[in-house]
Amino acid sequence: MMKSRIQTVSYQDSVLRLVDQRKIPIVFEYYDCMNYRDVIFAIKEMVVRGAPAIGNAAAYGVVLASKEYFTLDEQSYLRQMQVACDELEASRPTAVNLRWAIDRMRTIILSGVGKKAVAEDLRSMADLILKEDIDISLKISQHGNAIVPHGARILTHCNTGALAVSGFGTALGVIRQAHYSGKDILVYADETRPRLQGGRLTAWELMQEEIPVTLVVDSVAATLIRDHQVDLVIVGADRIANNGDTANKIGTFMLSVLSKTYDVPFYVAAPISTIDFHTSSGKDIIIEERDAKEVTHIEGIRMAPEGVHVYNPAFDVTPWENIAGIITEKGILRPPFHESIMKWKDN
Amino acid sequence: MMKSRIQTVSYQDSVLRLVDQRKIPIVFEYYDCMNYRDVIFAIKEMVVRGAPAIGNAAAYGVVLASKEYFTLDEQSYLRQMQVACDELEASRPTAVNLRWAIDRMRTIILSGVGKKAVAEDLRSMADLILKEDIDISLKISQHGNAIVPHGARILTHCNTGALAVSGFGTALGVIRQAHYSGKDILVYADETRPRLQGGRLTAWELMQEEIPVTLVVDSVAATLIRDHQVDLVIVGADRIANNGDTANKIGTFMLSVLSKTYDVPFYVAAPISTIDFHTSSGKDIIIEERDAKEVTHIEGIRMAPEGVHVYNPAFDVTPWENIAGIITEKGILRPPFHESIMKWKDN
Repeated sequence: MMKSRIQTVSYQDSVLRLVDQRKIPIVFEYYDCMNYRDVIFAIKEMVVRGAPAIGNAAAYGVVLASKEYFTLDEQSYLRQMQVACDELEASRPTAVNLRWAIDRMRTIILSGVGKKAVAEDLRSMADLILKEDIDISLKISQHGNAIVPHGARILTHCNTGALAVSGFGTALGVIRQAHYSGKDILVYADETRPRLQGGRLTAWELMQEEIPVTLVVDSVAATLIRDHQVDLVIVGADRIANNGDTANKIGTFMLSVLSKTYDVPFYVAAPISTIDFHTSSGKDIIIEERDAKEVTHIEGIRMAPEGVHVYNPAFDVTPWENIAGIITEKGILRPPFHESIMKWKDN
Repeated sequence: MMKSRIQTVSYQDSVLRLVDQRKIPIVFEYYDCMNYRDVIFAIKEMVVRGAPAIGNAAAYGVVLASKEYFTLDEQSYLRQMQVACDELEASRPTAVNLRWAIDRMRTIILSGVGKKAVAEDLRSMADLILKEDIDISLKISQHGNAIVPHGARILTHCNTGALAVSGFGTALGVIRQAHYSGKDILVYADETRPRLQGGRLTAWELMQEEIPVTLVVDSVAATLIRDHQVDLVIVGADRIANNGDTANKIGTFMLSVLSKTYDVPFYVAAPISTIDFHTSSGKDIIIEERDAKEVTHIEGIRMAPEGVHVYNPAFDVTPWENIAGIITEKGILRPPFHESIMKWKDN
């Protein structure tokens, strides 16, 4: 088994250590969180990013809060822990894994087992969530490998690798697995404006492992898909509705329309935890809008006129009809997803 | 009549003065070309850009070459002028207006009227091409206004304004005209990676004239079109084949597919000179590939891993089936363009 060399999220001696993803590919540095407010900063500023990695970081954020408040009396401890959970949960609104991880931590806080046991259980749960995520990403990668033909040219968007998932990756995990099983693949990486996670992170991760990669600006993908320079498209997901509608990084929806128009299979790779059973369709997913500066400034340098009005949604929603399959740790869901998701939910 | 305040290309006292489009929106500066090699540099480095403005600059480049070589004997003068024309023509391979402008200048060089008359005629022809372009862009703007509904929200790509056309603009000319005729329009400007002409130039031009504009990264357009936040899309063209297939800035094709899928009218605005009657379809258009650094570096700062492989086509080709109409100075061509173009050609 090939394991990713990158440890995106790790916890030791009361410090949550994150790979500082703002600095790749220029330098490789760690960002150490000493308390849960550092974790909130790291999530908001995208020191850590990718839905699963955010969930992992947030869980350890709760552990750090527990250390900080442990000397308080029982009542105050529990109250402060709730506040910390609320704040951590609010740090990125769209990522469902974040809510899901915090929910699991909350269950412990509300269990009534007493402060000492709560503190111990929180640590165990954070470790468990991390370990599960690593296992899940490996299983996604293995299931996904089935849909990658030999010699495939694969287009991907944003970053869904070890940096996003604290494991093998989701969409990029499938790509890794295909590469290590000797399929002689080639990857097109969308640069992914505005934050350039494709150019900064995906290209870097693939080059680290000598997987052939070609970087393109996002709009080049359209021509590649039309001209069948791409055999399949694989992307990640930030939130999947009950019917399979998928919220993912802005630009994903565009790829799905092109893929459908020109008959190129379009896959989503994501853990089951990304499915939000409370959301019936994409219409109900609220899309996070981010700072205009992500568009107008690059590395602090202004690229657009001062005061220009900007619309900067972080995600878009791909309708389930455009998705050939959702690759999960339990296998590949096929459309209509309303049925296939329901089936898995009931098992 | 409203005239653009921006003089993108002007010639006086043996100097070709260009608005330095690399520096907008941070500073407004001119770039003075003292000889034809300066003009080649300006075209290659995109000091001047936009198919019509490139044609204007190149024509004055021939005038500058004529000044430089005027003291040579007749034979050497004519030979050097041919070399200058060849070099100017090669400076941007896709822009058909460039070839067309140089062709008109060549006809004078080959006319056999003698060096002195040639030199005078070259200057007159360059002035004429510039004046024609200004007139043409105004006519395009007026014809195009007919397809803009009151209160329209218009999406545009790249820059097709006064900076590109040394006049009112093509696609942006239509937008200007609609604004000044009181239609209460709103513009979405794609930033247009890799060179960000939308964010740097289009947003700047529109803000200069207080036309409401919202800047978006290119992939946001897909969601805007699907959700009918956009009533029509208008873009320019670098080269139009005989059947209406249109080469334009990378990203245009993607917009056309989205527009067709979600029933939003997609228009091209361009002078008749952009139609290359020698090219039967988009398949025959050779797409210029530009330096990887346009993608990997922004303002000299590296954004992608060192040595990453990049595919950076400057243009893509939109099939004629996706185009609702081509707005020209002679009126609006409607599909099938093979017939409508033929009809105009014969008149």
